[in-house]
Amino acid sequence: MTDTVDTSNPTNEAQEIEKELDDSARVLKRGAASAGAGDRRASTNDVVVARTDVEWLGEYLLGTWAAVRLGARELTARPELQRVEGQTYPEHRERVFGQLKLLVENGQVHRAFPKSLGGEDDHGGNIAGFEELVTADPSLQIKSGVQWGLFGAAVLHLGTQYHHDTFLPGIMSLEVPGAFAMTETGHGSDVAAIGTTATYDEATQEFVLDTPFRGAWKDYLGNAAKDGIAAVVFAQLVTKNVNHGVHAFYVPIRDAATGDFLPGVGGEDDGLKGGLNGIDNGRLHFTDVRIPRANLLNRYGDVAEDGTYSSSIESPGRRFFTMLGTLVQGRVSLDGASVAAAKIALTIAITYGNERRQFTAGSDTDEEVLLDYQLHQKRLIPKLATTYAASFAHEQLLTKFDQVFSGAADTDEDRQDLETLAAALKPLSTWHALETLQEAREACGGAGFLAENRLVGLRADLDIYATFEGDNHVLLQLVAKRLLSDYSRRFAKADFGVLARYVVEQAADRTVNSSGLRSLAQRVADLGSTARSVGQLREASAQRQLLTDRVETMVAEIAGALRPASKLSKKDAADLFNLHQAQIIEAARAHAELLQWEAFTEALEGEAGLTSGMDDGTRVVLTWLRDLFGLGLVEKHLAWYLMNGRLSPKRAQAVGLYTERLAARIRPHAQDLVKAFGYGPEHVRAAIATGAEKARQTEARDYYREARAAGTLPSPEKKPKRP
Amino acid sequence: MTDTVDTSNPTNEAQEIEKELDDSARVLKRGAASAGAGDRRASTNDVVVARTDVEWLGEYLLGTWAAVRLGARELTARPELQRVEGQTYPEHRERVFGQLKLLVENGQVHRAFPKSLGGEDDHGGNIAGFEELVTADPSLQIKSGVQWGLFGAAVLHLGTQYHHDTFLPGIMSLEVPGAFAMTETGHGSDVAAIGTTATYDEATQEFVLDTPFRGAWKDYLGNAAKDGIAAVVFAQLVTKNVNHGVHAFYVPIRDAATGDFLPGVGGEDDGLKGGLNGIDNGRLHFTDVRIPRANLLNRYGDVAEDGTYSSSIESPGRRFFTMLGTLVQGRVSLDGASVAAAKIALTIAITYGNERRQFTAGSDTDEEVLLDYQLHQKRLIPKLATTYAASFAHEQLLTKFDQVFSGAADTDEDRQDLETLAAALKPLSTWHALETLQEAREACGGAGFLAENRLVGLRADLDIYATFEGDNHVLLQLVAKRLLSDYSRRFAKADFGVLARYVVEQAADRTVNSSGLRSLAQRVADLGSTARSVGQLREASAQRQLLTDRVETMVAEIAGALRPASKLSKKDAADLFNLHQAQIIEAARAHAELLQWEAFTEALEGEAGLTSGMDDGTRVVLTWLRDLFGLGLVEKHLAWYLMNGRLSPKRAQAVGLYTERLAARIRPHAQDLVKAFGYGPEHVRAAIATGAEKARQTEARDYYREARAAGTLPSPEKKPKRP
Repeated sequence: MTDTVDTSNPTNEAQEIEKELDDSARVLKRGAASAGAGDRRASTNDVVVARTDVEWLGEYLLGTWAAVRLGARELTARPELQRVEGQTYPEHRERVFGQLKLLVENGQVHRAFPKSLGGEDDHGGNIAGFEELVTADPSLQIKSGVQWGLFGAAVLHLGTQYHHDTFLPGIMSLEVPGAFAMTETGHGSDVAAIGTTATYDEATQEFVLDTPFRGAWKDYLGNAAKDGIAAVVFAQLVTKNVNHGVHAFYVPIRDAATGDFLPGVGGEDDGLKGGLNGIDNGRLHFTDVRIPRANLLNRYGDVAEDGTYSSSIESPGRRFFTMLGTLVQGRVSLDGASVAAAKIALTIAITYGNERRQFTAGSDTDEEVLLDYQLHQKRLIPKLATTYAASFAHEQLLTKFDQVFSGAADTDEDRQDLETLAAALKPLSTWHALETLQEAREACGGAGFLAENRLVGLRADLDIYATFEGDNHVLLQLVAKRLLSDYSRRFAKADFGVLARYVVEQAADRTVNSSGLRSLAQRVADLGSTARSVGQLREASAQRQLLTDRVETMVAEIAGALRPASKLSKKDAADLFNLHQAQIIEAARAHAELLQWEAFTEALEGEAGLTSGMDDGTRVVLTWLRDLFGLGLVEKHLAWYLMNGRLSPKRAQAVGLYTERLAARIRPHAQDLVKAFGYGPEHVRAAIATGAEKARQTEARDYYREARAAGTLPSPEKKPKRP
Repeated sequence: MTDTVDTSNPTNEAQEIEKELDDSARVLKRGAASAGAGDRRASTNDVVVARTDVEWLGEYLLGTWAAVRLGARELTARPELQRVEGQTYPEHRERVFGQLKLLVENGQVHRAFPKSLGGEDDHGGNIAGFEELVTADPSLQIKSGVQWGLFGAAVLHLGTQYHHDTFLPGIMSLEVPGAFAMTETGHGSDVAAIGTTATYDEATQEFVLDTPFRGAWKDYLGNAAKDGIAAVVFAQLVTKNVNHGVHAFYVPIRDAATGDFLPGVGGEDDGLKGGLNGIDNGRLHFTDVRIPRANLLNRYGDVAEDGTYSSSIESPGRRFFTMLGTLVQGRVSLDGASVAAAKIALTIAITYGNERRQFTAGSDTDEEVLLDYQLHQKRLIPKLATTYAASFAHEQLLTKFDQVFSGAADTDEDRQDLETLAAALKPLSTWHALETLQEAREACGGAGFLAENRLVGLRADLDIYATFEGDNHVLLQLVAKRLLSDYSRRFAKADFGVLARYVVEQAADRTVNSSGLRSLAQRVADLGSTARSVGQLREASAQRQLLTDRVETMVAEIAGALRPASKLSKKDAADLFNLHQAQIIEAARAHAELLQWEAFTEALEGEAGLTSGMDDGTRVVLTWLRDLFGLGLVEKHLAWYLMNGRLSPKRAQAVGLYTERLAARIRPHAQDLVKAFGYGPEHVRAAIATGAEKARQTEARDYYREARAAGTLPSPEKKPKRP
């Protein structure tokens, strides 16, 4: 290995990189000119002046459901919908339940329900509005998600006309608060294995619900500990001594008047949690609880009076996944809410980092602003890039969701694509939100630890987003299985030339404008095998190739390693799979990262109708941000690129130097980039992000300046040296 | 680059690795035999059977202050000293204050104070006992740390006989609760820049304390919001119009009878925090507050009646750092408490992961235990290895601390080494605790989010450990500056041969038995330049070389890059430094990781007196664990090793495969390895780590087995396929 890093002339290297960054602006300018961006160009000389058109970018980020989001933000700006820190959990539960009534009064929660019942049949808009609630209080978001997004949506999507007419009005009005009783103490993400049974009794034409053992208690259910008077209960449907698998049943659980459990129903309070304490999570169990036959939510499976089972979907497996698939909106909305929380976190930390001064460095008197420190940039600015990527990716996910649920594009394949996309993006965005909130907290020091600055509360609330609505690792495993099954179906005997285009198409399939991406993918193929210079790294095509290549190579390797499984015993096959589990999940993560990158790139280069309003200066800033995201991914996985001969050691080091310089270039625009998120002080509500820190710093500097001028400042004995 | 990874024959590779693991046991056996381990050998054939001697290992981990730790654990087992979840913060504060009185009654908190006042002059033991309080309630640990470890210790170490006699008895008995008023709203880690002034008034022979602006309010002080009736206040000492820098003053702040602030003193409550809500953190400010001249804690600097300043330390810089250095125990104890918290987290998650079953894989009926999944191993077992490393490193730090503070080894160099060691280890262990608590939380799913399972509460409390008592990044920067100043002092004109031994010696200097390590370091030099095979990677000498080489190369690179700074303007020099800030901090982190690795290795290979009781089987397990830690570090920084030509792509991939197999080998011993931490159910106090999950799993499996046997289990319609 001779191509190791030459550090003999770092200055030249830095200059080359700066030159590349200038060139990137030049190229963008030419590109913009040829695209006819016209008089919105920010400069007339050869280099475009980087700037951020905050107003335009803010509108662009609001996306398709801008009006709904703005309406929801007006609502979340109202103090009565916001979290009060320091309440006990019984008080907090009380408050959030009251807030749900306000949501009903304000018509915020009926968009997804049928027009015939007073809704709007607007699925994308419903989720967009719902996500915004996270900035008021994540407990409010999740509690209303339980009521209308899970309990109500299960009746809507798994039930039929009778259920809609009978149950939805009470659910919509909150007259009937309800639990979504799927998870059991013994089974979370593995829903197929739940223990609760619903056995049909032909004699009385009733289902009899039973909890056979402690592990089959329903658990962690919002509305179960206190407020719920009904529940959609998932149970193994048994009739004529045959188990037809998991189905959903509408089950009254409490007397609405007294609040007592109905006969045969029991439960427990889950008590205090790490967060989301405005929600009354609890446990439920059933002993010989009888419900009418009609309470089976029978859209995908029914039992006749005589106990005969029927279903429009023959395969029990497909039926199960079809039923569960109708509930994908939970994952979609967690993805969006996590992006919103990351935006709030960065708004706080970047605003504070732009005002707070600490340690004198280049001056005898003036301390440095935190965000001018390289490390502070390295901690926050890549997270800003990822937040933009996740935001654009979420917009694509929400659009796909709306297309499927509105019926505009609702084939089996569309539904599978939606589920895979949600399973890929939700893990990345929920983890990203937690990491961002934590980094923001630490970057704000002790101030970040105070409840009044919100970072700790949001982090505590969002913690569970990583494991509920599908554990993140389990979801990534689902994504990987989809990648592998597509691979084996299409390339069992294919040559490598076909393979080479495979994952590119995979990625394209997941995005909204797949045709546009497909043709870009074609361009990649013409470029050759590795990025050949620092300059090339900033080409979108080079980034795409590096990211795509990694996914496709990993999938192919795993597929090869697992090939013998079909000839092995079930036990040995499971062991073989387990030997590659970490690699499998890493491949899914790489795929999901590529999807985020594609979404960011699509937002930059996509249809003229959407991006034509982008001025050249804004395009420069957003392109730097996209490059930072893309090359940041390459940097994160640098060992892979080196081990697999995709980057030489020299090029690999250029990646790190380049991302460092990109962060420094973006730094002056960081405040504008968080401003474009569009959250005002009424949403951010952090004492340190209100300008208070700036006022304190100014007061302190004025004090010393005036004392120095007046000669009243004591002279130093001798300036202490810093360590 | 031709030496890319060949994946054509993964089976052979896996076999080779397994063979290497077997060989490692063989080699250990020979080593143990020649060391005369005698009849404690676990096996008589050629391969030692890996096992864990839990009892011996438990005692070994307790370390030098075993008796103190066991005594403290008896105390923390008492419910009245433990956290009650769900209290409001006023209730929690009340409870913790009451607990402090219990600590006094039980003689837990006076060990560090002079024998003449009823203490024991036992500095190491004091910290050891204090750290253990974290398992009862981190608020209890930190609140007693504020009272006796900061407020009391400042009087002890910065004051003289008069202060000891006058103030310590009340502090020790808790008659005088006090705040440690160093941090200001405007200045945290940069203590030298605080704004509070103490100006000597010759006329009245008093110091006059003043807070000149809002940013100079003291902030985040435990005991300030409610309980404190006095404070040690850090302020710029001004006399005869000269500022002699930061000194500490004993200042009464509240009327003990009424609890009201004394004239001129004001303050605010910091309110609810992200954790540690048993502590009444608050703000203080001073307006013309007069205190007697004698209230200056005058060990390192004094003012005579006529206002003349004198100090035994001429340089203001050195004086400042000497004063601050006496307070290093805060960092030492956070290091130890973080290790204890990580041990609790892993005890919970590994116990649960060993009982919880989810998804059938290799069987039609039995679900897999979580810890048998490769990914679950990958998530938890490397953290177990790091916890062992951090635990052994902490024992060395505590020993060093005790030597300095007992006077056994108390030169300037010893003190500097202690401070550097504390500044290196505290960031790593506090971050490690947070990461471990979070991984454990997620690995326990929804159950991990319940307060009753403790992970979320501990994580919330320990969050601030990363930024208080010195922000972690600032501390690492101090470490780096020490590395660089040592480097420049010793190697300004040296050749590379000298340099090559430099950081090895650095590492050796930091450990207790430096002579032993120095000779080992010599052995490294004989080995050659890179690890040459998978087999070699498991040699301690190869790991040491890889880790040491990285530190020394990074330090040399940075030193080279910064060399022009001396010829630059202050501003340009600061800019140059800033350009390398991230790299500088990464070098410090690498150094700290090496220190942890050396401590683990020392614990394995150190003096016969300590390790001779280790049986061969235990040595095999601990060696695997150490190798997993060491090679895990190499894996984490793999890109660096590849870019710098230290590992070929082929070898680099072997590292990952080897750590994966190491984790699998350690997996059967994981439960024993957490058992050896020695925390009983009364310390762990997590409902899911009590065997409850195992009982639930057994009940469920029995139910299905019996129903199957009795023929009462409904037959499946057709087994649903898993996605």
